[in-house]
Amino acid sequence: MHTISDYQRFFLEYLEQKNTTKEPKNLYEPITYILGLGGKRLRPTLVLMASEIFGRSYNEALDAALAVEVFHNFSLIHDDIMDDAPLRRGKETVHEKWDINTGILSGDAMLINAYQLFENYQGDTFRELAMLFTKTAIEVCEGQQYDIDFETRDDVTIPEYMKMIEYKTAVLVGAALKMGAIVAGASDQCKTAIYDFGRLLGLAFQLQDDYLDAFGDPETFGKQVGGDIIENKKTFLYLKAVEFASENEEKQLRGLFSLNPEDPSEKISTVKSFFETTGARDSIRAEIEAYTQKAFAALDSLSISEDKKEMLRLFGSTLMNRSV
Amino acid sequence: MHTISDYQRFFLEYLEQKNTTKEPKNLYEPITYILGLGGKRLRPTLVLMASEIFGRSYNEALDAALAVEVFHNFSLIHDDIMDDAPLRRGKETVHEKWDINTGILSGDAMLINAYQLFENYQGDTFRELAMLFTKTAIEVCEGQQYDIDFETRDDVTIPEYMKMIEYKTAVLVGAALKMGAIVAGASDQCKTAIYDFGRLLGLAFQLQDDYLDAFGDPETFGKQVGGDIIENKKTFLYLKAVEFASENEEKQLRGLFSLNPEDPSEKISTVKSFFETTGARDSIRAEIEAYTQKAFAALDSLSISEDKKEMLRLFGSTLMNRSV
Repeated sequence: MHTISDYQRFFLEYLEQKNTTKEPKNLYEPITYILGLGGKRLRPTLVLMASEIFGRSYNEALDAALAVEVFHNFSLIHDDIMDDAPLRRGKETVHEKWDINTGILSGDAMLINAYQLFENYQGDTFRELAMLFTKTAIEVCEGQQYDIDFETRDDVTIPEYMKMIEYKTAVLVGAALKMGAIVAGASDQCKTAIYDFGRLLGLAFQLQDDYLDAFGDPETFGKQVGGDIIENKKTFLYLKAVEFASENEEKQLRGLFSLNPEDPSEKISTVKSFFETTGARDSIRAEIEAYTQKAFAALDSLSISEDKKEMLRLFGSTLMNRSV
Repeated sequence: MHTISDYQRFFLEYLEQKNTTKEPKNLYEPITYILGLGGKRLRPTLVLMASEIFGRSYNEALDAALAVEVFHNFSLIHDDIMDDAPLRRGKETVHEKWDINTGILSGDAMLINAYQLFENYQGDTFRELAMLFTKTAIEVCEGQQYDIDFETRDDVTIPEYMKMIEYKTAVLVGAALKMGAIVAGASDQCKTAIYDFGRLLGLAFQLQDDYLDAFGDPETFGKQVGGDIIENKKTFLYLKAVEFASENEEKQLRGLFSLNPEDPSEKISTVKSFFETTGARDSIRAEIEAYTQKAFAALDSLSISEDKKEMLRLFGSTLMNRSV
């Protein structure tokens, strides 16, 4: 077995070898650019790891891993246009560096290219990969649509929010692991269990992202602490605070989430104290813990050796133990 | 055998049955809208016709036909954003009726949905359809990119232009016919021949579109005659006129194609007379005829009955005998 950072390195070497600019340059240069921007390469690493966990060399999973990374970056290009985001990983977004039309068309080509990468697999493996990919990609689009819809709704429920983050983020983590299992020819039971592990861990991770946005350490969080509050984003913390709030508190919270003050520091600290006093902070911590445990429990049914389960647990713990 | 208008009707009935709006509404309503806008349904009709020509009921080709139509409409949504087009088939474009973000995301979902429709085919048929679709879709993106690139280049050659229209338009016509052949389990030779027939006819059709834009009958052409000249579009006619022009004529032509007069009627008539005097008009008519004949010649190698070949020729003639 290799370590997670081995898989990361294997993937990066493969990406570097494959990530070349073809003609027409104006279509393919933005693709080379975004794929070269870095990032943790979390999803492709999971494809490689899952393949070896179920007994097949990571080598055979490289194209599936690349497909997942290409798809993820397609969604980043199109999401960045929709969000009007100027920066991605500290560099200009594609539509900023080029223009919106370039972002649309290069993104389209990436989505198609992801399918093309599955052509390196034969028979049922090709079919299974393409079908899982399609299901996941549709869900990611629907998740993005729910996220957009929620911006202008004030009656979003917690189950709706959970479905949104499941579709927008968590299913691709599950799908990445399941693709490795498909390449390795794992049993249906194993494929389902590893998918659930990824999906549940993805949910825990996304909830933790909501949590850290408000309560994370500015030194280590990576993003601006309070960013969601500044943007009036209805995260789990906000929805739970509204649910738990008294009538008067709810009114104040909703009022704060209609403001865009030039200096947001007071708004941030007031909202954070609402998150604490209403019990939303405790609630999200409990949910994060519950989803993490459910993810680990999904591993129990896997018929793989204990050291392989340990590797998945290690990955889960490493992912979740970002500084709080 | 059925007639072409039978196939058109079969497709429309199937589309009506399948074209329902799911949740989230804001993602799927624009899809229902664009698919309901009408149009000739040329490409899906070809899928059904080809399937029966190679001996399989059109019923089995309906999902492949729908995939082709969904893909075509995906490309229309994204192209209309890129071209900033307000109208499509006389109705508001998706990004006008909703907004650009909706057009991007609903388009993405359609591209994925096209792949999903192939899941109704088993084994090798699924694989063949998905692979042909991927190859074609990539070419359509590349064709669109070349079209964009050509706007700001003044050294476009005729072979480059032919490649652009082949990728942007013609390959999808060939692919539609070949998909019907794949569904029907036709031989490789038949699949190649029917693809070439569609591709060559698509080229002839696109060249004819260039021709009619300048020399068509305003009563029957459907689009504004002279539209390409107004937009300074470097069509086959323009490129050929530049190629044939004397130094002085070329200078005048290039000059005219840098102008955007408020009343374009004089510019249009001057450019048209250049198209005639340089011989570009005769040249494009000869090319249209040559590609149409090459398309018909591709049918010769097909091992199908003469009445089936006749049906394809009838389709080709009907397509090409738009009023001039």
